[in-house]
Amino acid sequence: MNDLFIKSSSHSYHIYIRENIRFNVNELLAKTYSSILIITDENVAPLYLEDVKESLPSERVYTTIIPATERSKGIQTYYQVHTEAIQYGLDRESLIIALGGGVVGDLAGFVAATYMRGIDYIQMPTTILAHDSSVGGKVAINHELGKNLIGNFYPPVAVVYDVQVLETVSEKEVRSGYAELIKEALIADESFFKSIMDTSLTSLTNEQLTTHIRQGIAIKATIVEQDEREANTRKYLNLGHTLGHAIESELGYGSITHGEAVAIGMLFAMRVSEQKYFIKLPDQELLEWLQNNNYPLQLGSINTNNLLNRMKSDKKAVSGKLQMVLLKDVGVPVIEEVSEDDLNLYLSSFTDELLNS
Amino acid sequence: MNDLFIKSSSHSYHIYIRENIRFNVNELLAKTYSSILIITDENVAPLYLEDVKESLPSERVYTTIIPATERSKGIQTYYQVHTEAIQYGLDRESLIIALGGGVVGDLAGFVAATYMRGIDYIQMPTTILAHDSSVGGKVAINHELGKNLIGNFYPPVAVVYDVQVLETVSEKEVRSGYAELIKEALIADESFFKSIMDTSLTSLTNEQLTTHIRQGIAIKATIVEQDEREANTRKYLNLGHTLGHAIESELGYGSITHGEAVAIGMLFAMRVSEQKYFIKLPDQELLEWLQNNNYPLQLGSINTNNLLNRMKSDKKAVSGKLQMVLLKDVGVPVIEEVSEDDLNLYLSSFTDELLNS
Repeated sequence: MNDLFIKSSSHSYHIYIRENIRFNVNELLAKTYSSILIITDENVAPLYLEDVKESLPSERVYTTIIPATERSKGIQTYYQVHTEAIQYGLDRESLIIALGGGVVGDLAGFVAATYMRGIDYIQMPTTILAHDSSVGGKVAINHELGKNLIGNFYPPVAVVYDVQVLETVSEKEVRSGYAELIKEALIADESFFKSIMDTSLTSLTNEQLTTHIRQGIAIKATIVEQDEREANTRKYLNLGHTLGHAIESELGYGSITHGEAVAIGMLFAMRVSEQKYFIKLPDQELLEWLQNNNYPLQLGSINTNNLLNRMKSDKKAVSGKLQMVLLKDVGVPVIEEVSEDDLNLYLSSFTDELLNS
Repeated sequence: MNDLFIKSSSHSYHIYIRENIRFNVNELLAKTYSSILIITDENVAPLYLEDVKESLPSERVYTTIIPATERSKGIQTYYQVHTEAIQYGLDRESLIIALGGGVVGDLAGFVAATYMRGIDYIQMPTTILAHDSSVGGKVAINHELGKNLIGNFYPPVAVVYDVQVLETVSEKEVRSGYAELIKEALIADESFFKSIMDTSLTSLTNEQLTTHIRQGIAIKATIVEQDEREANTRKYLNLGHTLGHAIESELGYGSITHGEAVAIGMLFAMRVSEQKYFIKLPDQELLEWLQNNNYPLQLGSINTNNLLNRMKSDKKAVSGKLQMVLLKDVGVPVIEEVSEDDLNLYLSSFTDELLNS
């Protein structure tokens, strides 16, 4: 089965990656819970909610369906889910199951982290992108002034990944998810990177996808075990995210997916790395692969000053100085402080170049 | 100096208990912070905010003053303080200082626990009552459906307790604080209990108070080290709190202090213990001491059914069954499940008795 296992600071947990595992969730529970609340969204609910619900003991299983939008990561939905949990009578021996993509996982995980000061929860990702966010215990909601600004490090008791559900995800979701896989490859494993570059997303098989997901999660798990609270090496997982987040919020959430924005951010990080370290990276190869696989790379009339300001307010910034993840080679990430002036120059030439690509 | 030291699961921290230590906070910081936000309330601010502020490096020290009311532990103030922290530019290397009583400590601690997934914070209690809540890392806000329902276990990096500020607290605050000291004595140390029973709050000296606080915190620290996440022994610290919380919310926060309500709750727990275990406890002695020291013990026309319902929704309840901390002797606490019927009987006879006391 090749399940993965991860040691967190507070406990160890399994990452189950199997086909049709959603029909057998109950068998994976390590103990008997007094009640279970499944949190999912309105897109996932009609597809898989009943499957998961029926796999659990019939008594005291409750469900909450949130809107399938980034806005569900706001303080209102967060408070509302707490209200429902209280009204259903969840107690300290209850379990929350996060069934969905990154929004559901981040929100439900943060509710679990803070409900009565923390109860158990399981991540059940239903997207490719969420292979990344479901592992490692970073949970959060958004503040209107920035993404993921309110949250915890709070590991789940298990990740239950039914890769069979990935057969039906849209091309856009495949693109978004593969960006995070490329990120993991770029910071840790050149042969994995090459394997992805040899894969065409339009003719992707489920075997290829499952193999890539397993490789990606293994990289993520290793890093999270080394540095759960993101004091050093875990920061590498933010490759492409400083610009990526800025693009997402500048264009407005929903107009470009997280992964699509991160893909552009990674290209940028590679370009900056090349100029800073006088090295050659496979950025041209990545660019062509992104183009061949229909990633949106035109940022239109985006304002580089606005991007810059958003990057500066990123929560990875310290003392107002911007930190970027760069590469000295594929598999050799570094954290580098980049001055505002340099960033401005890099960014202008990069957006010009994208316009003409 | 006799400072105390506490080992938490994530780190160890000092509890500094000294006179006039508020003028020297900077010397106690273990590292240089990129910025500092002092969170306090409108009562404490005019008294001590400037002292603390001036003891810190002058650059990048910000302050937030919240209303001195239990309502400040609501989701609105929580979100508002996050907003200010973002606007002041706090980053992951910033520090929050909670300067005040339990409301400030719980709120500011939970903001620190969740700001960018957790930054350092220091508890600076300014009340006697807060000697208890400032140690051990239980932080929370209230939900409109119940107290402290949203929170974390998140230890501070230090507790800085300037006992000189306690010279000016009101009689009501002294009563409230001593209830938690009595609680610590009852669950762990008979001679400490006797020492309090020999003390008159109306002629209390600062030496007596400091000694008692040090003893109370030492008990608390020992328990928290054993069981940070309240899986077993830490539950003993809830002695008197099941009924105490119910009284507080039934009468409305503000009409009775937390400690005054807990004092009644402890009397009740002792009465239940005597009837359940056929033992004799010093409850009569405690009752007389409470009367002599002007604790409000008349609950008036309080509805015992309402109290019962509130006790059942307490977050210490599991699977709908109510757990109470009882005593087999002074210093020998136990957790006991009490049926609803029994509780109803105990409660009716107890409230009748209080009416006639």
